[in-house]
Amino acid sequence: MAEPLRLGIAGLGTVGAAVVKMLNANRGQIAERCGREIVVTTVSARDRNKDRGFSLNGMAFLQDPVALAQSPDVDAVVELIGGADGPALDATTAAIAAGRPVVTANKAMIAEHGNRLAGLAEDAGVGLFFEAAVAGGIPIIKALRESLAGNRISHVIGILNGTCNYILTRMEDEEKPFDVILKDAQDLGYAEADPTFDIGGHDTAHKLAIMTSLAFGTEITADDIYLEGIEQITLEDIHAAGDLGFRIKLLGVAQRTESGIEQRVHPTMVPKNSPIARVSGVTNAVAIESDALGQAMLIGPGAGGDATASSVVSDICDIARGAMLPTLARPAKALEPYVRAQMRAHEGGYYIRLNVEDRPGAFAHIAERMAEQHISLQSIVQKRDPKTADPETPVPVILITHKVMEAAVRAAVEKIESDGYVTGPAQVIRIESL
Amino acid sequence: MAEPLRLGIAGLGTVGAAVVKMLNANRGQIAERCGREIVVTTVSARDRNKDRGFSLNGMAFLQDPVALAQSPDVDAVVELIGGADGPALDATTAAIAAGRPVVTANKAMIAEHGNRLAGLAEDAGVGLFFEAAVAGGIPIIKALRESLAGNRISHVIGILNGTCNYILTRMEDEEKPFDVILKDAQDLGYAEADPTFDIGGHDTAHKLAIMTSLAFGTEITADDIYLEGIEQITLEDIHAAGDLGFRIKLLGVAQRTESGIEQRVHPTMVPKNSPIARVSGVTNAVAIESDALGQAMLIGPGAGGDATASSVVSDICDIARGAMLPTLARPAKALEPYVRAQMRAHEGGYYIRLNVEDRPGAFAHIAERMAEQHISLQSIVQKRDPKTADPETPVPVILITHKVMEAAVRAAVEKIESDGYVTGPAQVIRIESL
Repeated sequence: MAEPLRLGIAGLGTVGAAVVKMLNANRGQIAERCGREIVVTTVSARDRNKDRGFSLNGMAFLQDPVALAQSPDVDAVVELIGGADGPALDATTAAIAAGRPVVTANKAMIAEHGNRLAGLAEDAGVGLFFEAAVAGGIPIIKALRESLAGNRISHVIGILNGTCNYILTRMEDEEKPFDVILKDAQDLGYAEADPTFDIGGHDTAHKLAIMTSLAFGTEITADDIYLEGIEQITLEDIHAAGDLGFRIKLLGVAQRTESGIEQRVHPTMVPKNSPIARVSGVTNAVAIESDALGQAMLIGPGAGGDATASSVVSDICDIARGAMLPTLARPAKALEPYVRAQMRAHEGGYYIRLNVEDRPGAFAHIAERMAEQHISLQSIVQKRDPKTADPETPVPVILITHKVMEAAVRAAVEKIESDGYVTGPAQVIRIESL
Repeated sequence: MAEPLRLGIAGLGTVGAAVVKMLNANRGQIAERCGREIVVTTVSARDRNKDRGFSLNGMAFLQDPVALAQSPDVDAVVELIGGADGPALDATTAAIAAGRPVVTANKAMIAEHGNRLAGLAEDAGVGLFFEAAVAGGIPIIKALRESLAGNRISHVIGILNGTCNYILTRMEDEEKPFDVILKDAQDLGYAEADPTFDIGGHDTAHKLAIMTSLAFGTEITADDIYLEGIEQITLEDIHAAGDLGFRIKLLGVAQRTESGIEQRVHPTMVPKNSPIARVSGVTNAVAIESDALGQAMLIGPGAGGDATASSVVSDICDIARGAMLPTLARPAKALEPYVRAQMRAHEGGYYIRLNVEDRPGAFAHIAERMAEQHISLQSIVQKRDPKTADPETPVPVILITHKVMEAAVRAAVEKIESDGYVTGPAQVIRIESL
């Protein structure tokens, strides 16, 4: 058997502690599978004395993660500090500069600095592994970097944020509005005190940006993604979607189009009987569509210490076995610049909910505005609740369009809104038929 | 860039042709991802002159796959001949003996000779890759061999045979009996003229045996698996399952128990709202349950030239990048003998359909037989079709048990059958709550 692989682990939070425990608990199995022992020689964390459920005996404790990355007792570095910049980035670049492969679970760092880090890793001839950065325990990075090497991918579609999926699932199951469920999710620890990063879609965008690069061979561009969160989704939308055979999910979608790559994160109506519609609660899922493989989907836990540790250990084992491949699947220099397809050029089906005033001609007027933009309608649902059959109250009208250009939908909706037959803004939700 | 990897491909059927076309079509992308060109230097097939949609120019054509495996122009061998023995096995062993890594899509060969081949490959220091042997395009072998290295797996559950899933899906959707759908599937090319290997569960057993070894670190044992096919599934069972919130799937299940490993292939009732119940038609799926990752599932096309070629090319790229790991995840010598858990000791829920004669006391009698075996019932459904409300016709009675030992169910059913209150044999279908 080869020499043991000596690991330095920077960051001993939930994931870091789970990694150390997993390496200890499955020491024999992992050594057999890797052809060598894996030994944690060095760790760094803020607080040495915190109880983590395991002893730090036998491991060097360094306050400074950069010192850990440069330690002579370390063959490979596991970065679990978090944060796009600061100590995480410093430790990662120091490790690469010292010629040591790196495993990270840090989606923010890869999303924001992945292109540069890929170049540095390549120049230094070391691997940079980040299975845990996207969709937690789901082996989606390996699938995209390795398994799909011979495919030309056309779509990557994911439920990538457990908090959003948890909230949407509970809104539907319990018929309670967004605010109530969010509050409860916060109390239960499923949502942060400041939930913006999750519910606004930013976390999904980070993960999507990484997958887009792997799928399409382009540079990662996390700050140029069309973004809509789930804050505006009402119970009324969820009910209307259900009546029409759909369910609402926050999806990250990347797809190749003639005018560039669409990267978009937004609430999406998916057919109830599609596999992705069945992904409930905090579970994540990624669907890939490609020329050879066709449609494939991976489902699993997107977060949690143990599930994330499973991905980190998978990367550690790859390093132990000497695996070496370009960080972003292709050499950094071969990555193409990201050309963003405009959302106005997006083609798809749309759900449009309008609060229409109960006046003669209102509906004819709306229909005319749609016709002007050559938008053909698949369904029209007008539902007045008998209990509120008050002619003063606007009637919710739901339109489902056939495939149409987003620019046309926006133009029609803008005109309808300004024409005075509707109250409040229109709710527009895109439809994906997976 | 490193020297090109020179491939010899033995077998140019649907999959072989798709592999050559994929390597040609994505030459640049694959070279970027592998760090070297991949060149098919040598092929072998039965008929040189068959039109395969590409030219054999520039490739040496050898009649004999063993000669191909030993050719000095070949660095790695792709075996796509098929069949557990004969030329496929000869070419594989010859390639390994010549120190060349092998890619194969041959589930029968791996299922029957995998243990020995793993040892040979290890002794020769070459890799043996077989992603395409299980579940076609789904990267399940990579997930089990690499991604789950740090996990202790408890269950592997798969829909592994497209023909069976296609037939069961159509029976339910079209409300037509097994024979009618099988005939139609044969006419459409979804089932073989002799369908026994598929519908009897043998194909599923081969694939399951391979996954069991990877999941549990045991020797592959394909001929010691509990096996029931789908031939006995009636429309009545499908309807009854549906009424109770279940769907019937042919599953391959491997699970660790206290008395050994259960490997079983049989029609199974799964909750309709479980993700695996949603896998329809020829699609395959594998669910894995493990200590760290929890539940994960991979869904995708289980057959077809292009999807299978996607997996073959993934393996070729691994070889091109110098990947090296034990064939069955652990060193061949470290594999434990397979200890089969007895089906009688299987614990689970059961669906039992009986045709009960309409005589006083019949039902009390059945209930007593169940009670004798300490079987508690979750549901009892007795449905007499009003149109055939003829006291001479037996009434179908469906029992759903709570979790119970299989031995108890068998004992109860045996007694019920011999007591004379029922007509014909009982239909017994196991339930999995995924």
